[in-house]
Amino acid sequence: MNSKVLSRRDLDFLLYEWLDVQALTGRERFAEHSRETFDAFLDVSQQIAERDFAPHNRKNDLHEPTFDGNRVEMIPEVSHALRVFAESGLLGATMDAEHGGLQLPHVVQRACFLWFQAANTASSAYAMLTGGNAHLLLAHGTEEQIRRFVHPMIEGRFAGTMCLSEPQAGSSLSDVTTRAVKQADGTYRVTGGKMWISGGDHELTENIIHLVLARVAGAPAGVKGLSLFIVPKLDLATGERNGVTLAGLNHKMGYRGTTNTVLAFDDAVGELVGEEGRGLQYMFHMMNEARIGVGSGAVALGYTGYLHALAYARERQQGRPVTAKDPLAPPVPIVDHPDVRRMLLASKSYVEGGLALVLYAAKLLDQPSPENSLLLDVLTPIVKAWPSQWCRLADDHAIQIHGGYGYTREYPVEQFYRDNRLNSIHEGTDGIQALDLLGRKVTQQGGAGLALLLDRIRATAASAPAELGVPVLAACDRLAATTAKLWADPSTALVNATAYLDAAGHLVIAWMWLEQLNAAADREGDFYQGKRLAARYFVTHELPRIGPMLDLLDSGDTLLLDLDDAWLG
Amino acid sequence: MNSKVLSRRDLDFLLYEWLDVQALTGRERFAEHSRETFDAFLDVSQQIAERDFAPHNRKNDLHEPTFDGNRVEMIPEVSHALRVFAESGLLGATMDAEHGGLQLPHVVQRACFLWFQAANTASSAYAMLTGGNAHLLLAHGTEEQIRRFVHPMIEGRFAGTMCLSEPQAGSSLSDVTTRAVKQADGTYRVTGGKMWISGGDHELTENIIHLVLARVAGAPAGVKGLSLFIVPKLDLATGERNGVTLAGLNHKMGYRGTTNTVLAFDDAVGELVGEEGRGLQYMFHMMNEARIGVGSGAVALGYTGYLHALAYARERQQGRPVTAKDPLAPPVPIVDHPDVRRMLLASKSYVEGGLALVLYAAKLLDQPSPENSLLLDVLTPIVKAWPSQWCRLADDHAIQIHGGYGYTREYPVEQFYRDNRLNSIHEGTDGIQALDLLGRKVTQQGGAGLALLLDRIRATAASAPAELGVPVLAACDRLAATTAKLWADPSTALVNATAYLDAAGHLVIAWMWLEQLNAAADREGDFYQGKRLAARYFVTHELPRIGPMLDLLDSGDTLLLDLDDAWLG
Repeated sequence: MNSKVLSRRDLDFLLYEWLDVQALTGRERFAEHSRETFDAFLDVSQQIAERDFAPHNRKNDLHEPTFDGNRVEMIPEVSHALRVFAESGLLGATMDAEHGGLQLPHVVQRACFLWFQAANTASSAYAMLTGGNAHLLLAHGTEEQIRRFVHPMIEGRFAGTMCLSEPQAGSSLSDVTTRAVKQADGTYRVTGGKMWISGGDHELTENIIHLVLARVAGAPAGVKGLSLFIVPKLDLATGERNGVTLAGLNHKMGYRGTTNTVLAFDDAVGELVGEEGRGLQYMFHMMNEARIGVGSGAVALGYTGYLHALAYARERQQGRPVTAKDPLAPPVPIVDHPDVRRMLLASKSYVEGGLALVLYAAKLLDQPSPENSLLLDVLTPIVKAWPSQWCRLADDHAIQIHGGYGYTREYPVEQFYRDNRLNSIHEGTDGIQALDLLGRKVTQQGGAGLALLLDRIRATAASAPAELGVPVLAACDRLAATTAKLWADPSTALVNATAYLDAAGHLVIAWMWLEQLNAAADREGDFYQGKRLAARYFVTHELPRIGPMLDLLDSGDTLLLDLDDAWLG
Repeated sequence: MNSKVLSRRDLDFLLYEWLDVQALTGRERFAEHSRETFDAFLDVSQQIAERDFAPHNRKNDLHEPTFDGNRVEMIPEVSHALRVFAESGLLGATMDAEHGGLQLPHVVQRACFLWFQAANTASSAYAMLTGGNAHLLLAHGTEEQIRRFVHPMIEGRFAGTMCLSEPQAGSSLSDVTTRAVKQADGTYRVTGGKMWISGGDHELTENIIHLVLARVAGAPAGVKGLSLFIVPKLDLATGERNGVTLAGLNHKMGYRGTTNTVLAFDDAVGELVGEEGRGLQYMFHMMNEARIGVGSGAVALGYTGYLHALAYARERQQGRPVTAKDPLAPPVPIVDHPDVRRMLLASKSYVEGGLALVLYAAKLLDQPSPENSLLLDVLTPIVKAWPSQWCRLADDHAIQIHGGYGYTREYPVEQFYRDNRLNSIHEGTDGIQALDLLGRKVTQQGGAGLALLLDRIRATAASAPAELGVPVLAACDRLAATTAKLWADPSTALVNATAYLDAAGHLVIAWMWLEQLNAAADREGDFYQGKRLAARYFVTHELPRIGPMLDLLDSGDTLLLDLDDAWLG
């Protein structure tokens, strides 16, 4: 029986038949690896995800963590699952061997981690946060900081968080007011309130290492005055509680198993990461990784929703197809109804397209070059926002395909839908991603990022069958022309940024489908037929959506600027 | 302070400035009424909704009804609210005075009831179900049945349900297997299992009157063999329990305050409504009303979500507008950010457009004519499905505008989003509505329904400013041409029925916006500016979406028919 968590067959296709991931072992960094070791980690990921993560996904939702004023209590399965995860070595999957890491390619780590995100997004988040925290310190911390903080994280003894937002500063980090005062011994005392801190408190690990954005006394206003501090929950030497208090838990619609906290820092002892004033720059290291992680999580939740819907549609008997002549013929499985097929095929195109994008982006990290870095920069807002919208729609379709059953808590799809709703919000809302894409990424280096992206898409489209390649080439030309037009009038270019993100996102996913189509070539079998089918669906049913978006952008419409909010009601 | 439940100003505009509802008092049926009595019922509806319904909306969600194997327990506020509602007389709002009804126009009743759906969709559902049940019996029951069952419903002593679905027959009613056996005394004994029965059991009323679709022994298979039975929970004479047992409650993602039940009928005593074999035809009386009620509920939930988001966006300070020059300027209310305005304006266009449609449809019932009946027939699937999708998107936007706060259960918008998800499922899924529209409503009477609809839209567009009228006229021509093309090949016409419903829906809402634009004329003030703004938004930002849908339909694409489900994964 096929897994309803994720598709190993699809991962194998994407990793080995498309991305040629085994060729990465020709690079020195991955020389100790082979297809066999990659497969072993994929195997163990599926095994642990299905055995230790999936079974408590609903229980996590029904019994969310509670705080009695003293300790955070949660179901014991979370701690067990994370212990097994740590023992697998995957916490240090991509890290250097010298730090106890596995030196796996990012693309393989990403594929492995998708199993956990699909099986139990809430429990897996603790591992994701710890990984992101450790990566930041590996890049910007001192040797000693790495030894004291990162090594225990890789071992699973410490967990990590990222403390950026405050009650008055969510999307707008320039308004962060938490302050840090330098002490004679070189440490800092950190004071302020942080909001929306995932994993901000729990008893899962011996310690929790907070990375905190704060403003040193006398630092300039705005983002340039922000520095980054390591603030452990407990003093590493004495085990005494540091000045970090859990002020409360936030109670969410979904994603309930991940504690989300309000933290009060009161004269908490912290140490600086890197240099003062460069905090946000360092934090972006973690944020970019987190954004790909969020996109990946959205794909994972959409993918598992799709697999559940597909299995249900094959099993559930109801009605006759619209083309049936005999109204008294026996009922058919609902997968035979065109509208159910529409939702399934759309969902397949979203989740497999999103998965391809997430893996493609991860592989760019494995072949570092200025070009790949530029491409990843321009893709990151799309990797983050597109799956958050469209793979969520796969979960929405999954409910619809289940009918009334899908709306009940007796079936898992309603939880996927609720869990996935967060992904358009955290780590920068969809609107923030749109501004990042149009306002920063496509303009940087004189537009080199977008030019590079379009070159890659065009090269793929030129190799694809004309029927599907030509519309994608045309869309590239249109996006390029629209972009040039927008930047001819920078004062209003950003007003319809979301339409731009939506259009660029659909074009990128069309590209991912042509890539898969080319990789499938004329290979026979249901799997490859499915790839060809979904590619055709995406290019013919989905890509045309971008026409009206680009028309709007071309029109230079400024309705959203001109309106007076008193008119809204 | 403005209500966050619904906008009385908007209702007044739609009822009096646009639909000229006061002119209905010129009809004999409404001669006892006046603008003053209409206003009095609107006032009292707002008052009761805000005082007795809204305050327990969250509590309903947190403490859903439970069943201990004997009784259904729920929070006492529901019973209180429904008692106050019954005392207002609104249960019999549109019914004849001779039955204790108020003889209000449907359009006024609809406007009144929207307050309750917006304030507390779950509690109001009991009243909606009872009303639908009573209307069916008024139309098809005997005088005696009306006296025994309907009069106590109008008084609030009995509640009503509609028992159609079975575990194996949801969308496909021809597969209903519940059977009825005629007794010597003319009554029937009803046996079978019913699923998804809202309000199927509770202690809110002295009795519950089930309307049950069942098959009399020897009746033909399919829908023509279905008859309709009145099956009370308790025998009216003795108060003894009839053979109807609550087999269990369904636990939903939202809409939790409305019990949703599995009912077991075991030799339950029932009496026939009308004639044998006409059950589904009678039931459609209730279903059509319920479909408008569902669309109305979707509008109400979207509307209240929009009002909450608007209030929040005006109050919440964060960041600077994208056009700001100074990154250190003080934060602005988020309503100043173009992307927040986009979501607000889109939501306004959805909820006010949806509200207009719901009231327009209701008014057709107040001016009965073959033409109005035909128009209502063709509009019903759109009234049901369009708000279920787009006013739900307003709730989605409301979460997004609230940012992280919107995702928490501390704010009401996440509940609106969950509650509203049901509306695309119950009373015929969106897919069923699409088949009803394209397969039945636009073809009946040789296409007269669609022709009439397009005539009405064209008349409105011709009176609107050309800038917005011309695109709507063009869309009418396109929809007409596409429809003709589709029916030239009936064997595949229905394959892309959903794209047809979506396109027709957006055109109908564009029409509703031109109607409002014409009604606003050049009147001054923020309110009218808002109407003009939203009309412009809908026609320029939303209506173009239908281009790719009609292109798809025109292409005769049969991807969804041709695929082999083995290719899906």
